[in-house]
Amino acid sequence: MTAPDPETLGRRAEAMILELGRISAEPDRLVRRFLSPEHRRAADLVAQWMRAAGLAVSEDALGTVKGSRGEGPRLLIGSHIDSVVDGGHYDGPLGVVAGILAASHFADRPLPFGIDVLAFGDEEGSRFPATLASSSACAGIFRPDTLLLADAGGVTLADAIRAYGKNPEDIPSASYRRGSAAAYVEVHIEQGPVLESRRQPLGSVTAIIGQTYLLVETTGEAGHAGTVPMPLRRDALAGAAEAVLLAERLASDTRGELVATVGRLAAEPGAANVIPGRVTLTVDVRSGSDRQRAEFVQRFNAGCRDIAGRRNIAIGVTPTREVATTPCHPSLQDAIAVAIASVGSEAVRLGSGAGHDGQAMAKLCPIGMMFVRCRGGVSHNPLEYASPQDMGLAVAALIRFIERFKPV
Amino acid sequence: MTAPDPETLGRRAEAMILELGRISAEPDRLVRRFLSPEHRRAADLVAQWMRAAGLAVSEDALGTVKGSRGEGPRLLIGSHIDSVVDGGHYDGPLGVVAGILAASHFADRPLPFGIDVLAFGDEEGSRFPATLASSSACAGIFRPDTLLLADAGGVTLADAIRAYGKNPEDIPSASYRRGSAAAYVEVHIEQGPVLESRRQPLGSVTAIIGQTYLLVETTGEAGHAGTVPMPLRRDALAGAAEAVLLAERLASDTRGELVATVGRLAAEPGAANVIPGRVTLTVDVRSGSDRQRAEFVQRFNAGCRDIAGRRNIAIGVTPTREVATTPCHPSLQDAIAVAIASVGSEAVRLGSGAGHDGQAMAKLCPIGMMFVRCRGGVSHNPLEYASPQDMGLAVAALIRFIERFKPV
Repeated sequence: MTAPDPETLGRRAEAMILELGRISAEPDRLVRRFLSPEHRRAADLVAQWMRAAGLAVSEDALGTVKGSRGEGPRLLIGSHIDSVVDGGHYDGPLGVVAGILAASHFADRPLPFGIDVLAFGDEEGSRFPATLASSSACAGIFRPDTLLLADAGGVTLADAIRAYGKNPEDIPSASYRRGSAAAYVEVHIEQGPVLESRRQPLGSVTAIIGQTYLLVETTGEAGHAGTVPMPLRRDALAGAAEAVLLAERLASDTRGELVATVGRLAAEPGAANVIPGRVTLTVDVRSGSDRQRAEFVQRFNAGCRDIAGRRNIAIGVTPTREVATTPCHPSLQDAIAVAIASVGSEAVRLGSGAGHDGQAMAKLCPIGMMFVRCRGGVSHNPLEYASPQDMGLAVAALIRFIERFKPV
Repeated sequence: MTAPDPETLGRRAEAMILELGRISAEPDRLVRRFLSPEHRRAADLVAQWMRAAGLAVSEDALGTVKGSRGEGPRLLIGSHIDSVVDGGHYDGPLGVVAGILAASHFADRPLPFGIDVLAFGDEEGSRFPATLASSSACAGIFRPDTLLLADAGGVTLADAIRAYGKNPEDIPSASYRRGSAAAYVEVHIEQGPVLESRRQPLGSVTAIIGQTYLLVETTGEAGHAGTVPMPLRRDALAGAAEAVLLAERLASDTRGELVATVGRLAAEPGAANVIPGRVTLTVDVRSGSDRQRAEFVQRFNAGCRDIAGRRNIAIGVTPTREVATTPCHPSLQDAIAVAIASVGSEAVRLGSGAGHDGQAMAKLCPIGMMFVRCRGGVSHNPLEYASPQDMGLAVAALIRFIERFKPV
């Protein structure tokens, strides 16, 4: 067997990703939604590549394409082929393409375990108001009530599955039997700037960090912008501005352990000449440490009580969503780091701030993730880019990982 | 002639205001727009009251109802009968009703000057995107291009005038001849909390304070809420939050000389999981001192440059509207204060933070304003309220003012 050549692998990866990127619902931007005609075309292309790599292709009830080889415990290698609206080419496809190219490398060689390359169709949740439906089905944690969710056109997931030629009743059989999957590994662009700022192409992910969403509502008193003296005001927006800066300061104080973002803010009544009486805003808190997030919420609450007291306004803080941190398995973290080192790179250990299919797959088996540097940390954007050099190193490292892999 | 009885005058004022308040385009809230069927009904009711008070009634091309008596230089007493959407009963109508009741008091007695009670139909600008059209026509400063402005239904002001049975070509003849008007005085609810906090029913207005509108745009970089570390962020909303607090602090530092309000703020892209890349907000700056406002703008600009520099974002500050302060004439300020004292009240001297028809009428003749305490400082709201006691004192003081009035 020849040694993997990162340069060749990178060129092939890029060509495949760009070919997949031409499959879109719109001519001028990339839109590939779950169970759409574009999903069908992308799945067919992926299946064709899998067959060429010597894999046996099947599809489950949610349209996940599986390319299998070998017997015994399964090493699952996957990612997703759906996109956000006006998305980039690399988020998702890179992991599927890397899996196919790595499997292809072993085409003529037996391995002491089986490999399933998985191409999920719903990671982004860009069609139905839910994410990770495909990987949840594989992991056996698909919630049947998800079938009732409707897309913007009123089509339910159940109907969309039927229109795709599948049957919702077959979803349970998409699940791996417990114990049959040895590990799930995924190659993905970082979607952040850490690898770039460290000048390293590859990283081993320590955890998919947990999220806490807070809904904050400040209530003061609306009033005439010209007639209410400053000391008599109970300005809901000025209070909200303090809360925005409080969230930023508390996150910065953790020195990298936690990030917090106020992405939405709405002031009412929203007239230029009226003091705002009510403001709602969201705080998205992420950290690899569930304890850090809980501490943030505690400090944020205390800070808001202080703001409310000083300003004679009310501030309500309501947690609306809590997703626990999903750690990558220590042995897989290490094995990925060793594989990265074996292709001559320094393995940066870093958390994933974005959500991934691994969050669902971790309910089935140990997971590991390899991150690939992307330009400017930009993702979910047509400017998203990873170089063929970096992608080639990633596929080569994945091949090294497979060579050394031993099911536990 | 009997002395004015504030209690009786207050009861009559309240009854008239409530009767006018029943004229609305909607059953459950007060909506009286310029040149609407409700304007017509309100004007007819006002005209009927004027005739009963011995006044000769006419209407100009913009539907302003004029009730006249006597010869010689004119003392103009007026306010408006249009309302904001879901407005209160007192903002506008009190001044018209006070003028009619005061004129009625002199019905059988000659005065050395004429009186015109004016009921304007467009002070609030709640139909067309312009304000003070009616008083501008009387003052001879109506801008013909205003006729091209359209309401939400696409009807231009010119067409609305015709539909009301008037002719836009007659607008110039609505103007008083220069020198014919001796003074314009207006009784109005304060729309703010100053008189209430001073526990006084009436005040003499020193000036209708000037306004500066600023449009502020902060531009940072949008990014993934989970993947961009805090130190690498260029968060447009965090920068905007600092600008909100800067405006508040600079206004508070003037200790009552100036107020500033951020009433509108929009963050883009406005998704909970995306760091805002662009924020626009408005700053409404008001002060009786044009110099104070200019200083505020200078300091605000400097503060924004500092925020932008620290945060590596751009902050643009654009003045979008500038309305100079309109001082009340010193002799009318004093005469109104004397009249207030003559009914046994302390005359509070205070600025008007809201705009008024006097801003247009000041281009024609000296102006004076008397403010009446309103509950909680609340206005532009169904909860708006002035007591019959306070309104009765205001009408009695207006009568005393007329008794002593001497055209300059």
